Amino acid sequence: MKNLNRMRVQAETLGVTLRPHVKTCKSPDVILLGNDGKSCPITVSTLREAEYFADAGFTDIIYAVSMVPGKLERAKDIMKRGVDLKIIIDDANIARQIGEFGDQNDCNFNVMIEIDVDMHRAGLSPDAPEVIEIAKIIHEQQGTELAGVLTHAGESYECETKEQLIQAAENERAQIARAADNIIEAGYPCKIVSCGSTPTATYAQNLRDVTELRAGVYVFQDAFQAGRGCSTNNDIALSVLCTVISHKNNQSRIITDAGGMALSKDQSTRGTDFDCGYGIVCDIDGNIIDNLIVTGANQEHGIITTKDGSDFNFASYPIGTRLRILPNHACMTAAAYDEYNVVDNGTDVIDTWSRCNGW
Amino acid sequence: MKNLNRMRVQAETLGVTLRPHVKTCKSPDVILLGNDGKSCPITVSTLREAEYFADAGFTDIIYAVSMVPGKLERAKDIMKRGVDLKIIIDDANIARQIGEFGDQNDCNFNVMIEIDVDMHRAGLSPDAPEVIEIAKIIHEQQGTELAGVLTHAGESYECETKEQLIQAAENERAQIARAADNIIEAGYPCKIVSCGSTPTATYAQNLRDVTELRAGVYVFQDAFQAGRGCSTNNDIALSVLCTVISHKNNQSRIITDAGGMALSKDQSTRGTDFDCGYGIVCDIDGNIIDNLIVTGANQEHGIITTKDGSDFNFASYPIGTRLRILPNHACMTAAAYDEYNVVDNGTDVIDTWSRCNGW
Repeated sequence: MKNLNRMRVQAETLGVTLRPHVKTCKSPDVILLGNDGKSCPITVSTLREAEYFADAGFTDIIYAVSMVPGKLERAKDIMKRGVDLKIIIDDANIARQIGEFGDQNDCNFNVMIEIDVDMHRAGLSPDAPEVIEIAKIIHEQQGTELAGVLTHAGESYECETKEQLIQAAENERAQIARAADNIIEAGYPCKIVSCGSTPTATYAQNLRDVTELRAGVYVFQDAFQAGRGCSTNNDIALSVLCTVISHKNNQSRIITDAGGMALSKDQSTRGTDFDCGYGIVCDIDGNIIDNLIVTGANQEHGIITTKDGSDFNFASYPIGTRLRILPNHACMTAAAYDEYNVVDNGTDVIDTWSRCNGW
Repeated sequence: MKNLNRMRVQAETLGVTLRPHVKTCKSPDVILLGNDGKSCPITVSTLREAEYFADAGFTDIIYAVSMVPGKLERAKDIMKRGVDLKIIIDDANIARQIGEFGDQNDCNFNVMIEIDVDMHRAGLSPDAPEVIEIAKIIHEQQGTELAGVLTHAGESYECETKEQLIQAAENERAQIARAADNIIEAGYPCKIVSCGSTPTATYAQNLRDVTELRAGVYVFQDAFQAGRGCSTNNDIALSVLCTVISHKNNQSRIITDAGGMALSKDQSTRGTDFDCGYGIVCDIDGNIIDNLIVTGANQEHGIITTKDGSDFNFASYPIGTRLRILPNHACMTAAAYDEYNVVDNGTDVIDTWSRCNGW
C-alpha cells in the first residue's frame, strides 16, 4: 500500500495522470488497490496484458511496445471490445501500413510517436524530422489518429546518485515536452505527453508540459530499485517463499529450493555496490537477515552465502526452515508465478491475486 | 530426433539405463518421442513434474532435489497413484523424519543418498561416514527403503576442453561407484547407481559400476552446451520466434519483441569465448545469421547487434521481419511457455506439445 500511495501522491503533486505500467504486477487486483478499487488508465507491455485487463474492466490502455503490422488484427479486436487502445511507433512506413489496415478494417488506431530521450532503445530523437513526417502521416491519413508522444528514460537505470536521477528525470521531461512542442508547432495535435520509469517518476521534481506519468516496478519495488534509491529494501513487497533443503556444516552456505526458476536469472544488481546476487534473504516473517544473499541459482537450487564471505551461524537455519527471498528484479521474478499469495503477519495468506503471463 | 537418438545410443553403448531429466522439456511428448512412444524411467526437478508425468503414464520417477518433510504428504499422494517415486537426501535427521512419516502413513519411501563428487552443490562426499550412517537409518527403520545413490557433476559446466569433460565424467563415475561400494561393503543394498549431466553424459567413455545415466538439456541442446562441445549450434532444437519491431538506420542494431520475458535473463555463456548474450539469431527458417546475437534484453525488447561490433546490413531485416532466437539455456527459456509449436520447414506448425511449469 505504501509503495502504491507514494507514487500516487507523487503524480498528484506534480499534476499529472498516473498511468501505471502493469508489466510488473500483471494483476488487476494490485492496480485496483492503488486506485480505491476503481479502474484507471494503464500501460501494458503485451497485447495479452491488454486483453487481461480489458476483461477486468480497464478501458484506457497504452500498449508501450512498438506496434508491427502482424499484431494489428489482435489490437483491432481489443478496440472492438470498447477499449481505447493507444499504440506506439517510430517508423513512417509502419505508420502508413497501420493506416491502410485501419482504413480497410473500419478501425481508427490511436497512434503515439515513440521518442528516444537517452539513446536507450527504440524511438526517434525529439528534433528528428521523421517525428513531424510521421505526425503528418498519422494525422492526415485514414485509419489513424495522432494521440501524442511517449518516452521511457531507460538509461535512468544506470544513474548512481540522486543528482543523476533528478537530472535524468528532467532530461526525460524536457525532451518529451520538446517533441510535443515540435509537433504542435508543425500544426498537428499532441494530446498525450507521456514519460516515466520508476527511477525518473520517483525523482521528478516537476513535470511541466507532461500530461502522464508511467511506472511499473514501484508497486512491489525490488533490490535493484532499492539500491538505486527509489525505495528501501524494507519497502519490497514481493518475496519468494522457499525451504532450506540441504546443509553442509563444514561449508559456509545453505541450499534452498528456490533457484533460477523461482527467482529468475536476473542479475541486475551485479557490478553495483548493492549486488545481492539473485536476491536478499529474509526469515519467514520478512525480516531481512543481515549479510545473507542468494549467490548461486541453479534450476531448482538456490545457494545462500554471506555477502562478504564472513562466517555465519547457518546451523540456526536447519533443513526444513522456511525463508523468503526478496527479488533482484520484481518483473522477472513475478513472471514465474500464476498468482500472488497476499500475506499478513508473515505467513497468513489473506487473499490470492491472479496475474497473466505469456503474450 | 537427432539429439534424442544420440543420447539413447550413448546410454546403450555404455550399458546403462537412460533416465531422462525432464526438467528441460517438461513435456511427455518429447520424452516419448525419444523412446519409441513408450514411457520410461525419468528424473524430475519438481513434484509438479512428477504429477504431470504420472498423468501421462510415467511410473518410475526419481525426484532429484533434496526431499524435505514439508513435501512428504504430496510425495505420498504421488506414490499412492502407483508411481515408484524415489527421493533423495543428504542428512541423517531428515532420513529419520521421512521414516517416521512413512511409518505413520503406511507408506514406504524409496530413498537415495545424494553424493557430491565435485563440491558443486548438495550431497555428501563418497567416503563421508554420514553416508553409511544414513544408509543404516534408511535400511533399518520402518517407512523407508534404501534405493541407491545419485550424483550430479554440476562442475562439468565449467570444463573448457574435451579432455576436462572426459575427466569430469570419469570423476563422476568413479566417485559415485565408490559411494555405492562403501554402502555395499557396510552391508546395505545399493541397487541404483545414478549419475549424469548433459556434459558428462555426452563425454563419458565408460560407466562401469553405474546403472543409470541422467541428462536433461540434450533433448533441445542450447548455446551453452554447444559452446562446451556437447553439440553444435545447428543441433539446437528450440527457438523463440520473434519480430523486428524497431529499426534505427543510423545505429548498428535492431530491436525485436523477444526480450527477457521471452528468452529469460540467463547469461550462462557470459565470460566464455562463445558468449552469445541472450541468444543466437536465425532467420525464420532457422538458419543461423553469422555474427548476430542478442546483446540486450529488456522486459519485452531484445537488442540485436553484431557480436564483434562490425558493420552489418540491418536494412535487410526491416520492421516486421520474423526471426528465431536460439537460447543460451534451454531450460530457462522454455519455462516462459506453456507449450511448444513443433515446426517443419521453418514455419509450418505440424504439432503442439504441452509442458508443465510451476511447482
